[in-house]
Amino acid sequence: MSRTRVTSFAISLDGFGTGEPQTRETPFGHAGERLHEWMFATRWWRGANEPGGSRGVDDAFARQFEPGIGAEIMGANKFGPPGWHEDPDWKGWWGPNPPFHTPTFVLTHHAREPIEMEGGTTFYFVEGTPQEVLEQVREAAGGKDVRIGGGATIIRDFLSAGLIDHLHVVQVPILLGRGSRLWDGLEGLEKDFDVEAVTSPSGVTHLTFTRTEG
Amino acid sequence: MSRTRVTSFAISLDGFGTGEPQTRETPFGHAGERLHEWMFATRWWRGANEPGGSRGVDDAFARQFEPGIGAEIMGANKFGPPGWHEDPDWKGWWGPNPPFHTPTFVLTHHAREPIEMEGGTTFYFVEGTPQEVLEQVREAAGGKDVRIGGGATIIRDFLSAGLIDHLHVVQVPILLGRGSRLWDGLEGLEKDFDVEAVTSPSGVTHLTFTRTEG
Ligand SMILES: NC(=O)c1ccc[n+]([C@@H]2O[C@H](COP(=O)([O-])OP(=O)(O)OC[C@H]3O[C@@H](n4cnc5c(N)ncnc54)[C@H](OP(=O)(O)O)[C@@H]3O)[C@@H](O)[C@H]2O)c1
Ligand SMILES: NC(=O)c1ccc[n+]([C@@H]2O[C@H](COP(=O)([O-])OP(=O)(O)OC[C@H]3O[C@@H](n4cnc5c(N)ncnc54)[C@H](OP(=O)(O)O)[C@@H]3O)[C@@H](O)[C@H]2O)c1
Repeated sequence: MSRTRVTSFAISLDGFGTGEPQTRETPFGHAGERLHEWMFATRWWRGANEPGGSRGVDDAFARQFEPGIGAEIMGANKFGPPGWHEDPDWKGWWGPNPPFHTPTFVLTHHAREPIEMEGGTTFYFVEGTPQEVLEQVREAAGGKDVRIGGGATIIRDFLSAGLIDHLHVVQVPILLGRGSRLWDGLEGLEKDFDVEAVTSPSGVTHLTFTRTEG
Repeated sequence: MSRTRVTSFAISLDGFGTGEPQTRETPFGHAGERLHEWMFATRWWRGANEPGGSRGVDDAFARQFEPGIGAEIMGANKFGPPGWHEDPDWKGWWGPNPPFHTPTFVLTHHAREPIEMEGGTTFYFVEGTPQEVLEQVREAAGGKDVRIGGGATIIRDFLSAGLIDHLHVVQVPILLGRGSRLWDGLEGLEKDFDVEAVTSPSGVTHLTFTRTEG
């Protein structure tokens, strides 16, 4: 069965999935690259062109990004900084060949025509409740899993709607103080999930929420 | 040298050190006992009168509560529920022989005469900036360490003032959604500390902040 999954969503100890302000030059605001240094150090991230990289628990989790995923849903603020919709040439942060390689649905109140990129990524711009959008995206995923790609706002919305089956959050030992916070308004979330935590020698803690069956 | 230490301060994943509302019957509000179940399961907590209990990492941390401590500072809301100062007979939640066994300073705008309890605990009621109060309490601690006993509000205040040397926080995998939150307004806190995280088979994650020397 097709599941909805959040993979490697990084937050600070105080729960922020990004800093502020978000601009073209600073997609994560004052957080800079600090939320993702653990990932940049993995064998998986370095890939074919760069030697080395850790092969431990960070790498094991990071590798779950692509396998089994048939489509992604992301929020408007992950696709671009405030005002991106006023630039008809904006195609996201990821260059001509984005790392998604599947249909990728951008939740936004500023819909535009789909953008076909290299490597299998097509950006679709959609509006609707999480339920409505998920129905449409499952179709596009062709029976595979759907990645809920963030940011914090849409992950929170999908969690509130009970639409996430597997949540993997990476807690980085920094305090951002401001930005977009994941955990607001989710009292009692753990009741529907098996929760595990494991720390890595890199200093981050991997938290996994797996929806309890039956 | 006398250090200031926070030991076993428990928070939810969303950072709350207590739920709400706090009443005589519910010192932790809707959190109930969920923030401290990991501690109740330790050998240390069970003590001489109860057999069993875990002897792992939770126990190792819990045991650090008493050794080397010469005095405690706590907030008014740890001492009692809203309105406690209107009851001249209120002596805290802990019965005739509280677990502190040292001079214990309650930060409050409703000062009253000291209360001498059994077993070495005397409650003093004080007002002032964290700096001022700490100076007075260090005196009372006689060269030993000072425990900053919580709740979240006073720990935050002492952290902001740069007055905590060692912070041990226990993150419990629940989402409380509301209450008193530890991590607000502490952007960049990690810069002054060595931070470690370790998870326990009980499901909690121990976070330690140790002030960088020099
Ligand atoms: N930490 C990580 O691992 C990670 C991962 C991914 C992204 N990020 C970062 O997170 C930040 C973005 O997160 P965020 O919380 O600010 O925002 P977000 O979740 O990316 O996007 C929220 C926005 O999406 C649009 N939207 C949401 N629901 C919608 C619906 N049902 N229908 C139509 N539009 C809808 C709205 O924008 P409009 O009304 O303007 O269209 C809303 O303001 C970025 O800085 C990104 O780089 C971090
Ligand atoms: N999770 C844990 O491990 C743990 C540990 C300890 C306590 N707790 C719980 O935490 C809760 C209390 O935390 P909290 O954040 O609500 O409050 P708190 O930190 O216990 O107390 C804050 C109060 O202390 C007084 N105060 C603070 N600074 C002062 C100063 N400089 N001078 C004079 N008075 C000052 C003020 O009260 P007034 O103005 O009213 O006097 C203030 O509202 C309780 O439910 C307690 O059971 C949890």
